[in-house]
Amino acid sequence: MRKVLVIGAGRSASSLIKYLLDKSESEKLQIIVADKQIESAQRMIANHKNGKAIVLDVFEEESRRKAVQEANIVISMLPARFHLEVAKDCIKYEKSMVTASYISKEMQALNEEVVAKGLVFMNEIGLDPGIDHMSAMQIIDRIRENGAKLLLFESFTGGLVAPESDNNLWNYKFTWNPRNVVVAGQGGAAKFIQEGKYKYIPYHKLFRRTEILNLREYGKFEALANRDSLKYRSIYGLEEVLTLYRGTIRKIGFSRAWNVFVQLGMTDDSYTIDDSENMTYRDFTNSFLAYSPHDSVELKLRHYLKIDQDDVIWEKLLELDIFNDTKKVVLKKATPAQILQKILMDKWTLKEEDKDMIVMMHKFGYEYQNEKRQINSYMQVIGDDQTYTAMAKTVGLPVAIATLKILNGEIKTPGVQLPITKEVYEPILKELEEYGITFKEEKVPYLGYNPEFVNG
Amino acid sequence: MRKVLVIGAGRSASSLIKYLLDKSESEKLQIIVADKQIESAQRMIANHKNGKAIVLDVFEEESRRKAVQEANIVISMLPARFHLEVAKDCIKYEKSMVTASYISKEMQALNEEVVAKGLVFMNEIGLDPGIDHMSAMQIIDRIRENGAKLLLFESFTGGLVAPESDNNLWNYKFTWNPRNVVVAGQGGAAKFIQEGKYKYIPYHKLFRRTEILNLREYGKFEALANRDSLKYRSIYGLEEVLTLYRGTIRKIGFSRAWNVFVQLGMTDDSYTIDDSENMTYRDFTNSFLAYSPHDSVELKLRHYLKIDQDDVIWEKLLELDIFNDTKKVVLKKATPAQILQKILMDKWTLKEEDKDMIVMMHKFGYEYQNEKRQINSYMQVIGDDQTYTAMAKTVGLPVAIATLKILNGEIKTPGVQLPITKEVYEPILKELEEYGITFKEEKVPYLGYNPEFVNG
Repeated sequence: MRKVLVIGAGRSASSLIKYLLDKSESEKLQIIVADKQIESAQRMIANHKNGKAIVLDVFEEESRRKAVQEANIVISMLPARFHLEVAKDCIKYEKSMVTASYISKEMQALNEEVVAKGLVFMNEIGLDPGIDHMSAMQIIDRIRENGAKLLLFESFTGGLVAPESDNNLWNYKFTWNPRNVVVAGQGGAAKFIQEGKYKYIPYHKLFRRTEILNLREYGKFEALANRDSLKYRSIYGLEEVLTLYRGTIRKIGFSRAWNVFVQLGMTDDSYTIDDSENMTYRDFTNSFLAYSPHDSVELKLRHYLKIDQDDVIWEKLLELDIFNDTKKVVLKKATPAQILQKILMDKWTLKEEDKDMIVMMHKFGYEYQNEKRQINSYMQVIGDDQTYTAMAKTVGLPVAIATLKILNGEIKTPGVQLPITKEVYEPILKELEEYGITFKEEKVPYLGYNPEFVNG
Repeated sequence: MRKVLVIGAGRSASSLIKYLLDKSESEKLQIIVADKQIESAQRMIANHKNGKAIVLDVFEEESRRKAVQEANIVISMLPARFHLEVAKDCIKYEKSMVTASYISKEMQALNEEVVAKGLVFMNEIGLDPGIDHMSAMQIIDRIRENGAKLLLFESFTGGLVAPESDNNLWNYKFTWNPRNVVVAGQGGAAKFIQEGKYKYIPYHKLFRRTEILNLREYGKFEALANRDSLKYRSIYGLEEVLTLYRGTIRKIGFSRAWNVFVQLGMTDDSYTIDDSENMTYRDFTNSFLAYSPHDSVELKLRHYLKIDQDDVIWEKLLELDIFNDTKKVVLKKATPAQILQKILMDKWTLKEEDKDMIVMMHKFGYEYQNEKRQINSYMQVIGDDQTYTAMAKTVGLPVAIATLKILNGEIKTPGVQLPITKEVYEPILKELEEYGITFKEEKVPYLGYNPEFVNG
């Protein structure tokens, strides 16, 4: 039996562990699931005879090293900042390692040692980063191999609620870490290039600079810019490309309504509100509006942000109960972002029967024999249930498939890497199709970044 | 002769040094002006027989200590972060010290030693902080001594161009550090209390939440909130007050136009623009607007920020040349804020003949014998010329007056302090009147923070 050590039994590990357990007989695997909370690990194993749950505190050197030493390969599903200690043990005991996280500087710095020992440290092999890398590079490489020149690359991903569970005005529920949703886009201007021009969007305008995405049979969506699209120039070798834009997908109308929170200052995570525990939701809303005791909080907000009588934004705000004068914030010394998160969690938490959805879209513009062309590719994945969510499948399956292929020597080029080489993405994308993770492609006229251009 | 050491001969030291030189005969003073650049110090002294210019690098311990040791009292007009070394020497050689800067934690920590040696370390005794403290505390103490209870305190200061030199559409020129103007309000939400309610304004709304101030014969102005008004509760002993608000004064219409830069993202100082040196002013403006090659930068901006055809904001933008396609930014790897500063400095730099102006206003609301009352106080100072500016007078004269009064033993309570006790503010405010720095007071009906309240 070959031992696969999976560190971290959080929600996103379910499909990953199921994949490995399902293959454990044919592939002769034992799956060791290690977590601080043994119950989480046990739940994942569900008494499978080839599974084993162990307690592991990643900061306890002795037990961590023992677990790594006994394994044949290691998967870390911990938050990115916890990978490094595991990575060093993997080098010490000569084990390959797989993570779904962005390569940190510290991780990158291990490359030389990893190469010297012939190990594969595969990172960024979840959904985003992960499936986005692989599905984009597959088409980029194909376009280049035909002798064409890339002009445009745009890429969009969204974690949303599935259409069958989509029953609020925002068309949104928390299918992932709520905090990340509340503070999304903060920390600096969004940067990208369009037709060779650098463009910058400050945070407070981000949610009003969306564009529409047409995912055909899956419907129309909207996208807002991610913070740094420019780093993908060097990663994908797109130094010459005129348009480079990465974004986040939401259902249409979400961002314009979310902008209300941004404008009010409710997403701010940089200061705490003194008396927050005694505030009602209404008090919280009012704290961002001018003092004016003879006007209602409602009218002050409508006037401040110029929300028309018949604007659906208003109904969205009412749905969240932000004017409720009995519900208390309860949280002590909370930041506005923490309070907003609490208000949203009352309404946007998935119910037992709810399913989630992942959508992804790429656009590739290129010039071939003096003719400009464009390919769009897109995918949709719906979760099975609250355990095998679309998020868990799209994050976990690539990790699991990569792990087995490294273990079996099918992926073998050593080094600290991400899945942008054919050796890696071809077999993984092929196998993902068996699990319903498939991209559709369409050829469309190349419009550059100006789809509404009408001459004259 | 008693030696007064003035460290730092920047622009704001002119009136301070003139005051001391003018008094040097009658008060038997020698004024030692120390600066890294001897020319700056010499210019200030202008061959006055009781003045002496010396070179001093504040980080050179030996010469700094020697200068402090030989002095009878020390004034530091350096930026606040450079005071500490001087302060420690002042303790070592038992010299009192005066600065116009906010008391840092490190400065405050010296209090015990300063008291033990019977020294006076007077800080925050310039304009703002300085004259604002003294003029406010004088009235606050008076109100309290009459047995009344403070309900409201609002305080506003502005450094502006004098009416006779006010000849651009913004009614603004740089009379102080331009960088501080460009990044003003950044770094966190503005916080204050109005009628017992905490209020928060995020940066991107700050310039649209102004209010009008009536300074009577000096005209009407607008005020925007400073970042942290709340710290004045403990400093002034206003824990019970219902409204506490501090703000910055501009001419009416400035903030609404400045908001264009905020909304575009031009005041951002957190990232650099790669190709900034080759950009034109027009390119810079365009980098914050959506790509759309068949529309003009002008129309894109008008549409994005909904600027009407006949809005004076547009003329203000044109006046600054932000659509100019030949003027180059030149600065390399500059932040948006640095580029904006350069564009503004083309137009807002004071000319030789220009004069500046300081305006300040306080509002005091209180309850006396069950009746609510209000006092407003306000002042205006116009600069004499480009040397003895209103800024130099209002910052430097209180420093100089305090220094002499400490030297003469009229101000003697030891400790690290700011000018909020009667012993300090009474004689200084009285003497400032001789230099035209006078407050006018008016009684107005108490309206609380709701001046437009109409019942029904």
